[in-house]
Amino acid sequence: MKEDIEIGYMDSDIVTLIEKFFKLPYVYTKSSCSGRIVAVDSPYPWSREGTIIFKVHRPIKLDELKDILSKKIVTRLWINSMGPIIHAVAKDFDSAFKIIQIARDAGFKHSGVLSVNEEGWVVELTTGVRANILAKVDDKVILKEEELDKICETINDVLLEGKKRLKMLEERLDAELKGLK
Amino acid sequence: MKEDIEIGYMDSDIVTLIEKFFKLPYVYTKSSCSGRIVAVDSPYPWSREGTIIFKVHRPIKLDELKDILSKKIVTRLWINSMGPIIHAVAKDFDSAFKIIQIARDAGFKHSGVLSVNEEGWVVELTTGVRANILAKVDDKVILKEEELDKICETINDVLLEGKKRLKMLEERLDAELKGLK
Repeated sequence: MKEDIEIGYMDSDIVTLIEKFFKLPYVYTKSSCSGRIVAVDSPYPWSREGTIIFKVHRPIKLDELKDILSKKIVTRLWINSMGPIIHAVAKDFDSAFKIIQIARDAGFKHSGVLSVNEEGWVVELTTGVRANILAKVDDKVILKEEELDKICETINDVLLEGKKRLKMLEERLDAELKGLK
Repeated sequence: MKEDIEIGYMDSDIVTLIEKFFKLPYVYTKSSCSGRIVAVDSPYPWSREGTIIFKVHRPIKLDELKDILSKKIVTRLWINSMGPIIHAVAKDFDSAFKIIQIARDAGFKHSGVLSVNEEGWVVELTTGVRANILAKVDDKVILKEEELDKICETINDVLLEGKKRLKMLEERLDAELKGLK
């Protein structure tokens, strides 16, 4: 994990949370995202079939938004502001639903078991915090220039709502770790 | 279920799919949505804390979009175009992951087990097909008037992508029912 952090695979906002997960005896994390803002040139907001033109794990500045809008795109431009997502492996049924319950209590309402394999019970902890703002169609900006500051604020508010829940999850994990001692 | 359909709780696009689920011996559905377009006056796109001002399970017309934009709102106006979501109860572990696999193969990539209770294994079958288009902030339209037709088309395209996956799921259930005979 340390190596992942150093080479920059992992976003820094989530490091302390992941360390807490690894202290729990019954679960560990696989891949995680603290929440991010991603601009994607794609027919649909999901990026699988599109081209990512911007990605950060922090709020954006108005100038960055303007810069994104100035880039040439081929289909539609979506600015996705997305909450945190954590994939973890729990050792058994009880552990899986325990960690799901902890996550739900912290605002990760869309958490569930994805699969069960030789490693354990794979859970996804996720919030439903997200916005996919349509920004360009056919390379034309569809947003009003004079409202861009408010739009920028909205994009950031969604991201920060996700980060808030990440903090809540961290606090729940602290309580859980305390109870184990 | 028939009663739900008659009194309008259920959207008609999903009726044949649900009937197919009920033919399977190891799973039945609880609540389902075929995908919808919802306009919500809310600080965030999720509607829990907001006011729903428009909701349909079909594509919208440009005039409807214009009408939505003309309504007075108090925070932000989001137009959410959302794919199908199905909550089902499977009788055991194997049935739950069987139906999840069938759903994933049909494009319901975000499916998983939500909980286990006395009824059985509660699964959520869902796609990741969605867009939450920001349309107004502080009661001001932030979308360009001259691009509304393309925006309307985009909203509908997202919805129809979800309906396509619903159709794919129906075909997979047909194949599964055939295999059981």
